[in-house]
Amino acid sequence: MNHKTRKWNFKGNEEQELVISMNSALRMLEENLNKEDQKPSIFLGYADPAGIFQTDPLAADAIADAVRSFQFNYYPPAVGVLEARRAIAKHLSCDLPYQLSPDDVFLTLGSIQAIEIITSIVAQPGANILLPRPGYPPYEANAVSNGLEVRQFDLIPEKGWEVDLDSVEAVADDNTVAMVMINPCNPCGNVFTYQHLKQVAETARKLGVFVISDEAFGLVTFGSNPFVPMGVFGTIVPVLTIGTLSKRWVVPGWRLGWIVTNEPNGFFEESGVLESLISCLSISPDPATFIQGAIPQMIEKTEEGFFSKTIEKLKETADICYDRIKEIPCITCPTKPEGSMFVMVQLNLSLLEDIDDDMDFCLKLAHEESLIVLPGVAVGLKNWLPITFAIEPSVLEDGLGRMKAFCHRHAKKQ
Amino acid sequence: MNHKTRKWNFKGNEEQELVISMNSALRMLEENLNKEDQKPSIFLGYADPAGIFQTDPLAADAIADAVRSFQFNYYPPAVGVLEARRAIAKHLSCDLPYQLSPDDVFLTLGSIQAIEIITSIVAQPGANILLPRPGYPPYEANAVSNGLEVRQFDLIPEKGWEVDLDSVEAVADDNTVAMVMINPCNPCGNVFTYQHLKQVAETARKLGVFVISDEAFGLVTFGSNPFVPMGVFGTIVPVLTIGTLSKRWVVPGWRLGWIVTNEPNGFFEESGVLESLISCLSISPDPATFIQGAIPQMIEKTEEGFFSKTIEKLKETADICYDRIKEIPCITCPTKPEGSMFVMVQLNLSLLEDIDDDMDFCLKLAHEESLIVLPGVAVGLKNWLPITFAIEPSVLEDGLGRMKAFCHRHAKKQ
Repeated sequence: MNHKTRKWNFKGNEEQELVISMNSALRMLEENLNKEDQKPSIFLGYADPAGIFQTDPLAADAIADAVRSFQFNYYPPAVGVLEARRAIAKHLSCDLPYQLSPDDVFLTLGSIQAIEIITSIVAQPGANILLPRPGYPPYEANAVSNGLEVRQFDLIPEKGWEVDLDSVEAVADDNTVAMVMINPCNPCGNVFTYQHLKQVAETARKLGVFVISDEAFGLVTFGSNPFVPMGVFGTIVPVLTIGTLSKRWVVPGWRLGWIVTNEPNGFFEESGVLESLISCLSISPDPATFIQGAIPQMIEKTEEGFFSKTIEKLKETADICYDRIKEIPCITCPTKPEGSMFVMVQLNLSLLEDIDDDMDFCLKLAHEESLIVLPGVAVGLKNWLPITFAIEPSVLEDGLGRMKAFCHRHAKKQ
Repeated sequence: MNHKTRKWNFKGNEEQELVISMNSALRMLEENLNKEDQKPSIFLGYADPAGIFQTDPLAADAIADAVRSFQFNYYPPAVGVLEARRAIAKHLSCDLPYQLSPDDVFLTLGSIQAIEIITSIVAQPGANILLPRPGYPPYEANAVSNGLEVRQFDLIPEKGWEVDLDSVEAVADDNTVAMVMINPCNPCGNVFTYQHLKQVAETARKLGVFVISDEAFGLVTFGSNPFVPMGVFGTIVPVLTIGTLSKRWVVPGWRLGWIVTNEPNGFFEESGVLESLISCLSISPDPATFIQGAIPQMIEKTEEGFFSKTIEKLKETADICYDRIKEIPCITCPTKPEGSMFVMVQLNLSLLEDIDDDMDFCLKLAHEESLIVLPGVAVGLKNWLPITFAIEPSVLEDGLGRMKAFCHRHAKKQ
């Protein structure tokens, strides 16, 4: 019998496709690049800060020291290496009105695994979760794959992307277990104020839902609003905070994140969230032990100057991005970015002559200009575009110049 | 309203408990340790080779070089860094009758993530998977959490733990999509022969199921049977191979594993396994990029002497283990271990006076002797014990001495 025609019982799996819309959009765009084009491709679709920044050599030294010490050549505890949890607790407590204990900190493989684990914990039968629109696609992807119902609330562009609290109350019910906040906001680029976060906490409390606060871009701010961790309101509402070293230390690919329980009153313990969290971590892969072992040295030794240089450069590229967008007639940016590495801009399709929607815009842009920008549908908002400004200023100028040329070429004739 | 009495919608999650039986057994045993006991606790329940071996300093250098090069400070491709995939393909091809391409290799966070990903791919509605008994618990845990039905086939202790092919045929049906082989065998310690693996491949082909070959302990052998990768039979049956650097390079906690498609005839591509695999990887966390970047140097520079020293030491501790077990009257070891870091031994309860079963044996052993051994139920075989010999010879002697004393104390009076 020929191997080729052998019948194997495995029939393929239909379910996988649902959950990779951002990746599949990126793949479609990459396939649409014009291979004849001599121009180098430019990616404004996702933020890989390695393109513009280099991490502090002291951070690399911390890794080299940890691996060469041979002190971290064992399987790590499921919750993470104690010294690393202690260093992160101390680091995060600086911005809180109370002290975190190492027992409040759980190490994860970057923020992505933190999202995976938290969605699997809250996915009880019948439960639903509230996600911001626009948002960060892995929340929806993981909720779907865990059978957790997703409901969306709006962020309001005209109000600097504040949460539409009425829409939160409108979609929540007794089966709503948690709501996600992303601050500094990815992909909108705003930083929520103390006052607004307090209102969100009070609304969540009223609804009986706890808050999952994604602070992957924590402290990555360069505008007038300082970063306020949601944990500040831990006495109003229980908060699970997600964080990572990747952004602030500019170590993408090191996969070092955490989940923190910000809640002085014991809800997470009493409700079983803590036990589920530990169970989940005990069957999940962990960050390499020596990377965990390097954390105390990374946090201690990195100097303020490294962070301020990064922030300064991001401010510069955010300004370039905002100014160049203003020169493009069919695109508007409602709010100047003040944090994270993204901004949302709106497409005015009525000014364009042969573009159906955001996906069509991005496909033609990829083909004609070798410029990759994600369509807003990929982050939940049709006919908008999430754009990253965390790239080299000259490349950003080039990319937005191409977008301008494209828009002029496709503008409706007056 | 008092925060304590606030009603939150989250009700806790019952489902998590099912999937951590090995961990919960370990936790119960640890809780049963006698805190008054002055003796240090000894763990023969799981293998952390860091207790006996140290990795090659050249491997640590490879990491330090990679991180300090600043060449790997970006988010890695979902399938892994190309140079690393190429180095692994070349390394594995040495033992195969054909050349693997880098495209056959997919990097994972150790073998645990490889198991997670593969079980989620094969978990179609109605499908079942065949697992060996005894086996490695994460297969069952992940199958259960993915809703994949588990059926077990037997390994035969009297035949050196060969697969009971009749039991494979008896439990398989048209919905059986894959069978798992673990070679060198964890927890039995045997190494399957070429002839037997070929029979397994032919049986799998007849049944229309592909083989998932867990070779985490690949090349970790020290007896008369050489290690034969299942991929050798890739023309008979499609094989997905799972591997890792952790064991052979003695780098537990570095979390560097892989999935390899060993199948020259295109089944994995045609059936959609390949596409599902890539989709799954694209939403899963990856090994840190610089660890991936260190792989070529690790594979190239590590000298044969490092491996032979490790194997020599394992052979020594396997011998100690086998000889000391022989001196314990109520325990028998059917086969001398020739690979992996584990061996299965059988409890003869009829010789013991007040021991109900393996769990009872282990609980009392923990309490009376501060010795932690897993009960066989945790790996699927009641009234057996999986024992690791990958620890310091003196500690192993001490531990097995304690087990002997325990057995004498609990022996039935003649």
